[in-house]
Amino acid sequence: MENIISSLFNIKYPIIQGGMVWCSGYKLAAAVSNAGGLGLLGAGSMYPEILREQIRKTKAATQLPFGVNIPLLYPDLNDIMKIIMDEGIEIVFTSAGNPKTWTKTLQQNGATVVHVVANTKFALKCEEAGVNAIVAEGFEAGGHNGREETTTLALIPQIRKATQMPLMAAGGIATGSAMLAAMVLGADGVQIGTRFVASEESSAHENFKNVVIQATEGSTFLALKKLVPVRLLRNKFASEIEVAELRGAQTDELELLLGKARAKLGMYEGNMTEGELEIGQVAALIDSVKPAAEIINEIMNEYRLAKSEIVGNKYDI
Amino acid sequence: MENIISSLFNIKYPIIQGGMVWCSGYKLAAAVSNAGGLGLLGAGSMYPEILREQIRKTKAATQLPFGVNIPLLYPDLNDIMKIIMDEGIEIVFTSAGNPKTWTKTLQQNGATVVHVVANTKFALKCEEAGVNAIVAEGFEAGGHNGREETTTLALIPQIRKATQMPLMAAGGIATGSAMLAAMVLGADGVQIGTRFVASEESSAHENFKNVVIQATEGSTFLALKKLVPVRLLRNKFASEIEVAELRGAQTDELELLLGKARAKLGMYEGNMTEGELEIGQVAALIDSVKPAAEIINEIMNEYRLAKSEIVGNKYDI
Repeated sequence: MENIISSLFNIKYPIIQGGMVWCSGYKLAAAVSNAGGLGLLGAGSMYPEILREQIRKTKAATQLPFGVNIPLLYPDLNDIMKIIMDEGIEIVFTSAGNPKTWTKTLQQNGATVVHVVANTKFALKCEEAGVNAIVAEGFEAGGHNGREETTTLALIPQIRKATQMPLMAAGGIATGSAMLAAMVLGADGVQIGTRFVASEESSAHENFKNVVIQATEGSTFLALKKLVPVRLLRNKFASEIEVAELRGAQTDELELLLGKARAKLGMYEGNMTEGELEIGQVAALIDSVKPAAEIINEIMNEYRLAKSEIVGNKYDI
Repeated sequence: MENIISSLFNIKYPIIQGGMVWCSGYKLAAAVSNAGGLGLLGAGSMYPEILREQIRKTKAATQLPFGVNIPLLYPDLNDIMKIIMDEGIEIVFTSAGNPKTWTKTLQQNGATVVHVVANTKFALKCEEAGVNAIVAEGFEAGGHNGREETTTLALIPQIRKATQMPLMAAGGIATGSAMLAAMVLGADGVQIGTRFVASEESSAHENFKNVVIQATEGSTFLALKKLVPVRLLRNKFASEIEVAELRGAQTDELELLLGKARAKLGMYEGNMTEGELEIGQVAALIDSVKPAAEIINEIMNEYRLAKSEIVGNKYDI
């Protein structure tokens, strides 16, 4: 029996590397695809011409399938979509917007389209829009996040109950046992972000990788709920946001505090005090930076071990 | 191979019914124990003499093991503990306080002691205190909740990495597949609250049971973080709290808004607008009120089905 996600993307393992701003350029995407997963370029932090260059570099670095992730709120979205189609990208992950606006166009251009959701309502909108598969992302995930705050454990069974679409679970998954748990809950595969931030090929700044592997429980929190909720690593900037929120700061003040280009400053340029550092809760479980291929091997070995313990009698009751 | 939680409590299935305020009296505890799980009386909402009466009624209604849950912040804690020991209660779940204060005393009196935690730091304190087992409860759980907001999926592997103590997972678990997922993540058993609120034997008011089964994603949120974080079902009262929090209300104002006896008013007396309704995110997955024995049977059937799908080749990759 072939895994539905592996078949859909023509990959070996149903492990998707999340397309993250400032962390997932061609080196990471190509390394993940070469190791049997699906690498994604995170176009959300790329100017259109940078994306074109990154796509070409990925093509040169892997013969295997890879994709592009693009938030539909991207300001020059038409330019980005034109490049995605010009370059013949066969797998597009969209997020943060209405799945109806681009799905058909991309599919007519030959692409498989996946949309990222955080609730059942949007999962059903994806089905209506004819999306090929969905990623359902829980509250523990890094970066932008759903307003309902539904955790992956609560979300996946809910979505599986509502739709039979191919489903990848995201948020809180960094190991093979978490991958198996997600599949037991109803997912067909997983999307992993945080663990790949702490990979050798990630374009995250060395300083950011170092704080990610030092993170512990409670090192992240969901900030900026009055703007767009985002899970941040605690640092000076994040604490300023938190203090302002606790005293009831409203959107205008929060926007001013956030300013511009904070994510680049932190994650890409390595400013650990003033930068915005987006990462998932599961950073607490990660303690070293490894090559992407080793991460995938480890996850698959853990997955097989966890599975064999069930096939054995460890969980007989 | 016998399950470590089943052995510890001398029960059939490693399913613990959470000891919840206003919902878990003797009818529910006895029904769960009679069905092969572990029923707990929720002493947090009982005057000492009521607890004594409930213990005696439980003893009359089941020959099987049951326990008492008591939050260590209970105002007349000495009186409650005296009754627990006088009545020879053999299983005590403590929560919301320091596990060192009562563990030895209870154990010297013949009790097995379990403490509820929401982070690894407290799990290790439990180990130091000589607690017999722990419950690790994630952000999605109903009622009082950890400040780190770590979800069950992120929390269980973290705790399992830190300690080999017998471990029950709580928060977000209402089905047999979620139970298996929790065990794949490292738990030895599960504690289930929300699903038993919506049981025939639960002492929750009919009105409360009805809103629980009508709940959908986003129906709950984590409120009162400036006091003690608590997951509430949205209603008029909860919205007033939320609005106050969004404009930065501080502890004194929130305490005033909360007032006294709101939980009883809502959960026990059935006032759905002014009452405090504590429930977990997984309420969204529950759509009917059933006898506790049927709930346990369903969970075990789902568990075995999920397990057999893994033993088969559904998850071969």
